[in-house]
Amino acid sequence: MFHARIFVTRRPSILEPEGRAIKQALGTLDYDEVTTVRMGKLADLEIDVAERSEAERIAEEVAEKLLANPVMEDFSVEVSPVETPTAA
Amino acid sequence: MFHARIFVTRRPSILEPEGRAIKQALGTLDYDEVTTVRMGKLADLEIDVAERSEAERIAEEVAEKLLANPVMEDFSVEVSPVETPTAA
Repeated sequence: MFHARIFVTRRPSILEPEGRAIKQALGTLDYDEVTTVRMGKLADLEIDVAERSEAERIAEEVAEKLLANPVMEDFSVEVSPVETPTAA
Repeated sequence: MFHARIFVTRRPSILEPEGRAIKQALGTLDYDEVTTVRMGKLADLEIDVAERSEAERIAEEVAEKLLANPVMEDFSVEVSPVETPTAA
């Protein structure tokens, strides 16, 4: 069993209005040190396979086919084993 | 200058319908190995301060005050220095 975290972000050249709005709100709260805010999506998956490479393949396919818009968005994937109390 | 990535996720006890819908779609695509999907939010901030501890403090305050709903959501923060070509 593996845990996969998928990060989906807009490509740097594409305007991201939600982050822009948050940046503006931060200005009114005097957080002037924050120069850029860009929002993205996060997906946490549990994948029940034996091999890490298999979990990575599935997570990348899920990101590509369902989660990310390939024209506007980039994605990256992090896979880690799920610790189970019964693991030797 | 630091880069902060803020992860906002629903608390495990709270239903997350978007992930449920994606899980269902994955079933019809024969990804039965994916047993759970939970969606969350991601914020990428650039913070123009000299000290990492200061960047961490600001990112945590931003997450707490603006990004996360403390009743339903948890957040975590990762801070890393931004490499600049002019750095000695």
